[in-house]
Amino acid sequence: MAGKGMLIIISGPSGAGKGTVCRALLEQDDKLVLSVSKTTRSPRAGEQDGVNYNFVSKEVFLKAVADGDFLEHACVYGEYYGTPRSSLEQMLAFGNDVILEIDTQGALKVKNSGVNCVFIFLLPPSADELFRRITRRGTESVESLRRRMASARGELSMASMYDYVVVNDCVDEARDSIAAVIRAERCRVHRNMDLIEAIIEEAKE
Amino acid sequence: MAGKGMLIIISGPSGAGKGTVCRALLEQDDKLVLSVSKTTRSPRAGEQDGVNYNFVSKEVFLKAVADGDFLEHACVYGEYYGTPRSSLEQMLAFGNDVILEIDTQGALKVKNSGVNCVFIFLLPPSADELFRRITRRGTESVESLRRRMASARGELSMASMYDYVVVNDCVDEARDSIAAVIRAERCRVHRNMDLIEAIIEEAKE
Repeated sequence: MAGKGMLIIISGPSGAGKGTVCRALLEQDDKLVLSVSKTTRSPRAGEQDGVNYNFVSKEVFLKAVADGDFLEHACVYGEYYGTPRSSLEQMLAFGNDVILEIDTQGALKVKNSGVNCVFIFLLPPSADELFRRITRRGTESVESLRRRMASARGELSMASMYDYVVVNDCVDEARDSIAAVIRAERCRVHRNMDLIEAIIEEAKE
Repeated sequence: MAGKGMLIIISGPSGAGKGTVCRALLEQDDKLVLSVSKTTRSPRAGEQDGVNYNFVSKEVFLKAVADGDFLEHACVYGEYYGTPRSSLEQMLAFGNDVILEIDTQGALKVKNSGVNCVFIFLLPPSADELFRRITRRGTESVESLRRRMASARGELSMASMYDYVVVNDCVDEARDSIAAVIRAERCRVHRNMDLIEAIIEEAKE
């Protein structure tokens, strides 16, 4: 993917606290922008269209799939989620670092697509705590909860495919660890070759 | 190298400000320790034996080389510098993260030895500023300065072999960037496999 910005994938099982940590991160660093995904699921209490997600109908979603508009899309618990390709490419081309908050299925697809990005897995402090958080959300049926817990087990096993793992025990600590990862990644040698070459050139004179 | 700690190499041309930045880093993070190198060069004003270096005679140094006591050693401007292997291994085994402030020759040898560590290159903000800093030190003969500047050119060209590059324009900023790299590296998936496996195991129960 072209562009000077960096794509940062924040993923993990549902209940890991991805949304909360991403919000905390975006509040602190105004060079970061959030990629807003499209979904067919219903908004949860407090979620806003265009902020948390673009909420669309199944018909609109499936047309976008057919048109190749998504970098990745997935079906999770019967609802569709997708990452719009063009807005993401635009933000990166502007030099923005972009946060993509995404489930593990979607992250795996982005990884396999060969897009150059930083993969961060948000880990709950314990499996017990994860199950407590999933139950506490209280927006779902018992059947949906049971599926979500079974799924969380499978998602945890994908952590080893990521670059970084951050434990979300305390939101501020998790936010600071992710901020450190982003700052460190900005210092990666392969992202600073222009700078290095300019100084070498200057030293020759 | 065995041990739970992480070895962090901070390198760069002489005049990049390695010593100043490392001191600032160690003052801020008490989980970090400094690996004290042995050298045959004379102490500069303010340098203390056992703190900045262990200052030893050429005879003592060469015996240690023959005994295989060094992880790496090098001869720079006619003086020897070496990293003692045993104290480093001890600190890492205790779980300390160890800072190794080292010239580019030494860093390259550590890299080629296959030791698992994090390589950070400290870059001056410009070649001009680097030459100014080298001249300003004022502890050396004109001939020694000339050699140091020529050498700095060669050292700059090694930056691309490192993992990270940090510009030392402002000491506090450089310190914070290195601190971010260390925090990020502590989150690397391969350093947290025990944690990941424990949660997966717990979730199965």
